[in-house]
Amino acid sequence: MNTSNKLECPKNTWYVACTPDEIEGGPLGRVICGESLVLFRTDKNEVAALEDFCPHRGAQLSLGTVQDGLVVCGYHGMKMNADGECAAMVGQTVEKFRKGIRSYPAVERHGYVWVWPGEASLANADLIPDLHWARSPDWAFGGGMFNIRCDYRLLIDNLMDLTHETYVHATSIGQPEIEEAAPDTARDGHCATVSRRMENIPAPPFWQDALKGNNLDPDVPVDRWQICRFTPPGSVMIDVGVAHAGHGGLDAPAEHRASGIVVDLITPETETSCWYFWGLARNFNVSDSVLTTTIRDSQQKIFTEDLEMLESQQRNLDANPDRRLMSLNIDRGGAHARKILQELIATDSDSA
Amino acid sequence: MNTSNKLECPKNTWYVACTPDEIEGGPLGRVICGESLVLFRTDKNEVAALEDFCPHRGAQLSLGTVQDGLVVCGYHGMKMNADGECAAMVGQTVEKFRKGIRSYPAVERHGYVWVWPGEASLANADLIPDLHWARSPDWAFGGGMFNIRCDYRLLIDNLMDLTHETYVHATSIGQPEIEEAAPDTARDGHCATVSRRMENIPAPPFWQDALKGNNLDPDVPVDRWQICRFTPPGSVMIDVGVAHAGHGGLDAPAEHRASGIVVDLITPETETSCWYFWGLARNFNVSDSVLTTTIRDSQQKIFTEDLEMLESQQRNLDANPDRRLMSLNIDRGGAHARKILQELIATDSDSA
Amino acid sequence: MNTSNKLECPKNTWYVACTPDEIEGGPLGRVICGESLVLFRTDKNEVAALEDFCPHRGAQLSLGTVQDGLVVCGYHGMKMNADGECAAMVGQTVEKFRKGIRSYPAVERHGYVWVWPGEASLANADLIPDLHWARSPDWAFGGGMFNIRCDYRLLIDNLMDLTHETYVHATSIGQPEIEEAAPDTARDGHCATVSRRMENIPAPPFWQDALKGNNLDPDVPVDRWQICRFTPPGSVMIDVGVAHAGHGGLDAPAEHRASGIVVDLITPETETSCWYFWGLARNFNVSDSVLTTTIRDSQQKIFTEDLEMLESQQRNLDANPDRRLMSLNIDRGGAHARKILQELIATDSDSA
Repeated sequence: MNTSNKLECPKNTWYVACTPDEIEGGPLGRVICGESLVLFRTDKNEVAALEDFCPHRGAQLSLGTVQDGLVVCGYHGMKMNADGECAAMVGQTVEKFRKGIRSYPAVERHGYVWVWPGEASLANADLIPDLHWARSPDWAFGGGMFNIRCDYRLLIDNLMDLTHETYVHATSIGQPEIEEAAPDTARDGHCATVSRRMENIPAPPFWQDALKGNNLDPDVPVDRWQICRFTPPGSVMIDVGVAHAGHGGLDAPAEHRASGIVVDLITPETETSCWYFWGLARNFNVSDSVLTTTIRDSQQKIFTEDLEMLESQQRNLDANPDRRLMSLNIDRGGAHARKILQELIATDSDSA
Repeated sequence: MNTSNKLECPKNTWYVACTPDEIEGGPLGRVICGESLVLFRTDKNEVAALEDFCPHRGAQLSLGTVQDGLVVCGYHGMKMNADGECAAMVGQTVEKFRKGIRSYPAVERHGYVWVWPGEASLANADLIPDLHWARSPDWAFGGGMFNIRCDYRLLIDNLMDLTHETYVHATSIGQPEIEEAAPDTARDGHCATVSRRMENIPAPPFWQDALKGNNLDPDVPVDRWQICRFTPPGSVMIDVGVAHAGHGGLDAPAEHRASGIVVDLITPETETSCWYFWGLARNFNVSDSVLTTTIRDSQQKIFTEDLEMLESQQRNLDANPDRRLMSLNIDRGGAHARKILQELIATDSDSA
Repeated sequence: MNTSNKLECPKNTWYVACTPDEIEGGPLGRVICGESLVLFRTDKNEVAALEDFCPHRGAQLSLGTVQDGLVVCGYHGMKMNADGECAAMVGQTVEKFRKGIRSYPAVERHGYVWVWPGEASLANADLIPDLHWARSPDWAFGGGMFNIRCDYRLLIDNLMDLTHETYVHATSIGQPEIEEAAPDTARDGHCATVSRRMENIPAPPFWQDALKGNNLDPDVPVDRWQICRFTPPGSVMIDVGVAHAGHGGLDAPAEHRASGIVVDLITPETETSCWYFWGLARNFNVSDSVLTTTIRDSQQKIFTEDLEMLESQQRNLDANPDRRLMSLNIDRGGAHARKILQELIATDSDSA
């Protein structure tokens, strides 16, 4: 099913659908790219994704249970396997009803469950991005998930233009020096990059805390950097950090810096809503789990400020559908991302 | 007025609109079969139903009061009689405004207020079903009412296929033996019946309590029966019970059984919502009012489980309008009911 | 932008948008006549109104701040001046983007902020109604504001037919004598008037309290008057009061009366919602601020009763779009007001 025919997103690609812990207790219902899915774990410890629609009477399979790797409908007990086939039902012969519902390629990797909403025969797990920090003991990660009532591209725009930090996050990661520093924007194939470097500036509160978390003096001038890398369909990985000024900035040795990767994995839900899997991977003081939690809580508070702005922006754009927006130099990263997405959507159409 | 032109239900028939206690304190507004009604009691102690629309300025009459058997509009005091005529208004001559609004045939009987949304000249109170238990001292009754956001036919389906008890009500009235026993389904004129008998099985918790309520041992094997009888437009009366095994089941003498009639009277509200008047009539230990309350509370909890499933099913079907559902042997009772309703709707059209 | 193309209201006229205190802490977002505005105070201590849409990326300017008389967008810092021009943005040259968004004529006067949603060149502050009591030490005023989910004309109807007080406000200002007294209705140019006088009647509770507030005996018979004056687009000023009977009623000397002006200033929000600025101006015991508060609280409670009735009426009319309403003698004041508005709307079209 497609609940949102107007949704513009590539289909032949991997999206994050959920985290593994979300399907521990039973099946999970979630709309991904306009399609209503039930996600669950099979008896082979693999993940599976089906249409969230029992072929018997149309109940949501996600209201049911998982038994022996099958989703059992919570209404009358139809059992569906990971291929979307009617596998068994007490008192019934269901073989004739195969093929029941659509199944979607699904893979668990790097701490996420990924699904492929497009043509299944094209699904190749090697195309899942390599989140190297997720499989390395040299990195610690903390994060969370939001459902935001905005077009997923507004969130990508947001992350590719960090001048918003000066205004939206004035009390944590924002500072005037961000908007004063012109960004470098580039596109390389299907990747768009926006870089900004600020030298000899005060560290804002979030980074003061991070310096302290790495046992560094938070009150001396720092060099700060932000390198945003978009890869489609919805990944924005941002190299962020500060180093005590004069030690090389982005290239400073570990003992002079606090840095990490802001992880942003974005999945469209409907035309005007998206799932936002966010977090921070850091490669300092990685064994300090209290620090992980502190950073996570701080980041959650900061990203909640974005949520309010984005949902308001979406409502305002909905009310002004014919209005053209500006395209300043700070908007070029988002424009690249939109162009790349448009190219992939066109490729989908070619292969359809 | 008709708020839902797509609503498919017979019009020339009686529907339960409310219970008498709902109109004790004043007029009641309720949408029945897509029509917005105000229900009230006249000075002759009869019930009356009018359009819930003051012909003066369009206020809801149900926000007003009842005086001398007239509904008095709460905005500017227009008084409407049970025939929908403007009867009086202080400072105004309203005779010229008769006929004001539509009135609907309404009758109080068997503990319910019934209305006839179709052609008034066809309304015949003899067509109201005879709920014999409601006028007999040999029976006790307890019940309640839900508003459910689903097509009324989904609720009829639900009640004509009790295999759902195994899954939806696993902790109360459900047990595996239900789905293991094939149903007998039959149609006789405008009545459809689904019967199921289970022999020598453990009683589930609800029926253990009922056996105790009838001073019988709850822990011995029982014979259990469920005989669902649909009559249009929205009545499903279910003979239910258990008897200690080997005493004749449905035909067992009173001292070996606990049994009753599950009362389900369903009235469409809109295309995707309905009013559900439910209850249990029992013919054992009828003077025990505490038992009546206990059973009622237990049944309310059980039927709330259906409500959640049905509303989710409706949303899923709304999102998949072109999808065909299965028709297994357990679905035949509901299919009969839908066919009977369709025939009556066609008859309405013929007489229109 | 226009969020409600079906909204029928004059555009070339002044509407109350807010009170000055609502823009003390920062910009205010409000939909006026279907247009989404941001209201703020400039560095010249003037009021200003712009489209609530940042031309950069479409954020609501009302989520931002005011600095040096400019609205600063809370997303990326675009600064807009009172003319709707892009005035400045750190790191950007924005001169080329003038003219950014629409500005609306706005004036602060008589305790309100007024905006002109139509053709700006026609805006003339002299056309703002003269609320004489607002600039006189002989009068005291207390009031408040409601957002009501109804067509603004239903609220005008309500205020031009005070027989509703008998029913909607039975416990405060209503009494049977209101509906028993026939109204005098007149139109003079763009003003409609409905007058009602009641002689030698008991004072209802609200006016008993007012008499006490003016140190007069509340328990003797009074003469009561209500003179409703509509002027477009949304002003209904009502001379109200009671005087001890036999002293001349409306013309009674101050020492025998308690009286005032019910202030009703109504601004459409959307086709089915409006802003209602209400209050009471009185010219007795004006230095008693406790009395001002008591009256205000009482009036708020009374007008909340209207709110519920009006929103229900709107829903009922929405469900019955083709239904014609009555036109009794009590409805003539509202009918005049609607005719006047229709004439002004036609004039708008001529000048468009």
